[in-house]
Amino acid sequence: MEPIKHIKITKGEKASKIIKDMASCGFGARHLSQATNILEQSIKDKECKLFLGFAGALVPGGMKEIIIDMLEQNYIDIFVTTGANLTHDLIEALGFKHYKRTEKLDDKELNKKGIDRIYNVLMKNQVYGKIEDFFTKNFNYLSKAKSPKEFLWKLGSLVKKRSILQTCYKKKIPIFCPALTDSGIGLMIWGQLIRKKKINLDFFRDVHDIIELSWQSKKTAVFYIGGGVPKNFIQQTMQFTRPAIYGVQITTDRPEPGGSSGAPLKEGISWGKMAARAKFVDVFCDATIALPLIHAALKDRIK
Amino acid sequence: MEPIKHIKITKGEKASKIIKDMASCGFGARHLSQATNILEQSIKDKECKLFLGFAGALVPGGMKEIIIDMLEQNYIDIFVTTGANLTHDLIEALGFKHYKRTEKLDDKELNKKGIDRIYNVLMKNQVYGKIEDFFTKNFNYLSKAKSPKEFLWKLGSLVKKRSILQTCYKKKIPIFCPALTDSGIGLMIWGQLIRKKKINLDFFRDVHDIIELSWQSKKTAVFYIGGGVPKNFIQQTMQFTRPAIYGVQITTDRPEPGGSSGAPLKEGISWGKMAARAKFVDVFCDATIALPLIHAALKDRIK
Amino acid sequence: MEPIKHIKITKGEKASKIIKDMASCGFGARHLSQATNILEQSIKDKECKLFLGFAGALVPGGMKEIIIDMLEQNYIDIFVTTGANLTHDLIEALGFKHYKRTEKLDDKELNKKGIDRIYNVLMKNQVYGKIEDFFTKNFNYLSKAKSPKEFLWKLGSLVKKRSILQTCYKKKIPIFCPALTDSGIGLMIWGQLIRKKKINLDFFRDVHDIIELSWQSKKTAVFYIGGGVPKNFIQQTMQFTRPAIYGVQITTDRPEPGGSSGAPLKEGISWGKMAARAKFVDVFCDATIALPLIHAALKDRIK
Amino acid sequence: MEPIKHIKITKGEKASKIIKDMASCGFGARHLSQATNILEQSIKDKECKLFLGFAGALVPGGMKEIIIDMLEQNYIDIFVTTGANLTHDLIEALGFKHYKRTEKLDDKELNKKGIDRIYNVLMKNQVYGKIEDFFTKNFNYLSKAKSPKEFLWKLGSLVKKRSILQTCYKKKIPIFCPALTDSGIGLMIWGQLIRKKKINLDFFRDVHDIIELSWQSKKTAVFYIGGGVPKNFIQQTMQFTRPAIYGVQITTDRPEPGGSSGAPLKEGISWGKMAARAKFVDVFCDATIALPLIHAALKDRIK
Repeated sequence: MEPIKHIKITKGEKASKIIKDMASCGFGARHLSQATNILEQSIKDKECKLFLGFAGALVPGGMKEIIIDMLEQNYIDIFVTTGANLTHDLIEALGFKHYKRTEKLDDKELNKKGIDRIYNVLMKNQVYGKIEDFFTKNFNYLSKAKSPKEFLWKLGSLVKKRSILQTCYKKKIPIFCPALTDSGIGLMIWGQLIRKKKINLDFFRDVHDIIELSWQSKKTAVFYIGGGVPKNFIQQTMQFTRPAIYGVQITTDRPEPGGSSGAPLKEGISWGKMAARAKFVDVFCDATIALPLIHAALKDRIK
Repeated sequence: MEPIKHIKITKGEKASKIIKDMASCGFGARHLSQATNILEQSIKDKECKLFLGFAGALVPGGMKEIIIDMLEQNYIDIFVTTGANLTHDLIEALGFKHYKRTEKLDDKELNKKGIDRIYNVLMKNQVYGKIEDFFTKNFNYLSKAKSPKEFLWKLGSLVKKRSILQTCYKKKIPIFCPALTDSGIGLMIWGQLIRKKKINLDFFRDVHDIIELSWQSKKTAVFYIGGGVPKNFIQQTMQFTRPAIYGVQITTDRPEPGGSSGAPLKEGISWGKMAARAKFVDVFCDATIALPLIHAALKDRIK
Repeated sequence: MEPIKHIKITKGEKASKIIKDMASCGFGARHLSQATNILEQSIKDKECKLFLGFAGALVPGGMKEIIIDMLEQNYIDIFVTTGANLTHDLIEALGFKHYKRTEKLDDKELNKKGIDRIYNVLMKNQVYGKIEDFFTKNFNYLSKAKSPKEFLWKLGSLVKKRSILQTCYKKKIPIFCPALTDSGIGLMIWGQLIRKKKINLDFFRDVHDIIELSWQSKKTAVFYIGGGVPKNFIQQTMQFTRPAIYGVQITTDRPEPGGSSGAPLKEGISWGKMAARAKFVDVFCDATIALPLIHAALKDRIK
Repeated sequence: MEPIKHIKITKGEKASKIIKDMASCGFGARHLSQATNILEQSIKDKECKLFLGFAGALVPGGMKEIIIDMLEQNYIDIFVTTGANLTHDLIEALGFKHYKRTEKLDDKELNKKGIDRIYNVLMKNQVYGKIEDFFTKNFNYLSKAKSPKEFLWKLGSLVKKRSILQTCYKKKIPIFCPALTDSGIGLMIWGQLIRKKKINLDFFRDVHDIIELSWQSKKTAVFYIGGGVPKNFIQQTMQFTRPAIYGVQITTDRPEPGGSSGAPLKEGISWGKMAARAKFVDVFCDATIALPLIHAALKDRIK
């Protein structure tokens, strides 16, 4: 039996040192440390493709640069996310911002001022008009896409600012958004269609493409930040191709009510989504806390 | 100030009586009671259309009959759900079952036996082969659908057993599943496409249809069981049409990490998803506990 | 394998019927049903003593009458609770009330008006003055107590209104409150001591007494509503006497951070707090929702 | 409105830099950053006394050295904790260890091997015999204590190893444990009493002492790690003396069920536990993750 070693902090302590030392603590600290180890291994394993499922409102939450860095550093091979994250990424890529909620305005006052609230983050509602202009201007080009994945790459090719969309396009990282219609971007496309523009996105081509990507991988790893559709879309891909041999999940959802978002990774073994001998860990933590720490440790460990 | 009245239980107590009395208690009991009142009002308000967002794995969880009854009783006007719930509904509609996890088999053993686990519910993996046969047999008919909504109604027209799909079809209740590709049903369609079958589902037509349904309603009400895409898809519809004047949400997700699933309904006021003067309540409870109780009370109150 | 049976609700449905049917559902519904079965068995097992650990603010939450009924019906043999619950019980026993928070006053306004808030329940701060008068008047009698348990029975003998304190006194149900100093009652005693009154409560006598009660039981059962000191005090008693053979826990705390309140009952097997072959279940639910339902079912099942 | 600045991580990033940058992110990251700022201010404010309420099983969780360092650095002025934390501190101070759960032994196997489990941390049950020997040897000295606080200092004076108990004793930091009987230490005292030893600890003297300490402070600050009795004991002290002007709480408990452990600090304003103009924040995070980060930042900021 290995003893618990109490974590000691010295002045100027590096985040990566703390993450390493947490391996000898208990509870969530150890899980966070294990998650970092597992991600490190999966990234260093050159035969292994890492599928990131990225849900939640983490772009408004300030996590965009970390994701971009992870994409640029080739940590992430396949990127699956929500329309919301991509819409917020696009909003910033077009020059608009999210804001800290500092004043104690209530939701009625915010509504009168045209400000949308995401917990302690704000956004001006007028950005919808601006992205509508962008779509109107560029829809002829965008509408040549045949699948959501192609559409999102085209979107990434158009934006001028550093963003998740642009990075995925530049690095040709496949980007999947199965519920694209459920987002501001989806509404913008609808807005063009009611103006008699045409587009024909084949959502099943994305199913085909992600399954192919998994088949072509010798090994697969999964990294779920939040649950929702991104997690499930990767899970079903693993189930019908090959189970993942590494897995990390960051979520604060409960397992008891039975939903996929709160289900522990272990459950995936029964389905063949996770290999019986896989290395995996569930981290119960707000991702805006866990992700910067994990990334700091990964950057110190991976050349 | 109204005093707390301690709830008293007598022999043979009706569920609806308990729900009513919970109005004078504190904490979650009061929320559950308020939720029932709000749903009752929204259902009795003949000018108001109730949009149900139904996420989670509630069909495997044993909630199917309640949803069917709510649809049959005209409580629900527009139904938005996940591909998972519809896949599990289809599985049962084709004669297969879900099972209680009673033996303490671990996930590795379950995997060897070909059994998939959803928390404390099990399913035989072989059902996938069976629904594949069903799709192969019926794909010519199904593939005539032009949108996911049409596709799901066609599916409902084919199944012989009482089910959510069949009920929505028979009663012509619009059924939306924005992330249909992210489900067993989505995989089955993909399975046909690789056999050179064709289908062309326009996912944006569903955006158009739900927006029209909201525009055509004099008033709207929202009922979210779980969060995820179903909630957000209704929320964005409200935002771009008219804010809901009644709202009930049942979720166990945390608000702090900023995701839509855990966001309190109040936040929707800033966005114009919820009317500033709306009646609404968040219920923090496992839906398999809350839903039967709410439904029991509604059945006693609504003729 | 036993199939999931979908719960059906008919008009006028009894709560106990719903609880029974939940046994064939999944997720939390099944846990709630199992909890009721386990409590029923432990109450009907005449050789078994049921230890209730009752934490949280459930008296302000409107659960007092259920607890009193459980005590009167001899469901509960040993009662362990927090000073807060007893203080709020005393407040009502002296004729004061708790109130529903209906107006949207914020905490600063409430403070100015002298109103204390417990989530959605309110209390007038002036009650502290009133219970101080009560203590001043009765302290000579109360101070003859030798242990917290004796003190609480004396308190129960003094109050004129139906209450938990009075019921425990009348029925001679042992009542333990290990953190009595951490409560309004504790402060009231301190208030007497600074007026040079004397009292000498031996807190270790209560440890002795609860251990004796467990030793004298042929079998033990535990029922934890919330965690905290009440749960742990019973747990340590079981550990040093005999492990419980029945166990039910209602809590919404997370297990991952390692605290006793969120720890699943299963963990207790390693310590010898719970018998390896015990029947037990953890219910993840707000106790103000779960408790009335469980009690309604118990009343229908136990003569 | 201040914009969200996306956090950027560079190689070798210091934890304190990450914590600082989190101030410009959203969700939990910002809360963690604010918590650090508030603690920094309260520690640097020489007129302000910081009361730490320390619950949970954080000694087994590997947080002991951080607490000792906080005590040694004079960050903490008054220390309130559970008997469990002190028992585990004593166990290590007497030379025994906690262990990482690495093998997948289940609770029944652990029980057979005499190993107690605390989530993912283990302890040999035989330590109880060892601390019993320690109490038998030293009880004459220990039993001269007149209050739990005195008793705990005496305990701290006896142990030879670096520990929380020893540090509080050496630095004369008041240490309160209102539910001392609810712990291994409590059981050890009971074990002496049944051998006819005597001790007379006045638990109300501790109420008196902590109230005096608060009265003597010009300003007070509160830091709650976990809830339970430690939080409530400090809260009631604030309520009856002076409201805190700084507050930080780390908890993963839900507010909805109404218990003190999950109650947001804001609620304390109504009671006069927290000043209306206080700076305070609730951090929703496993303390084994949040505490090392906060401490790393504090060490860099406070000379």
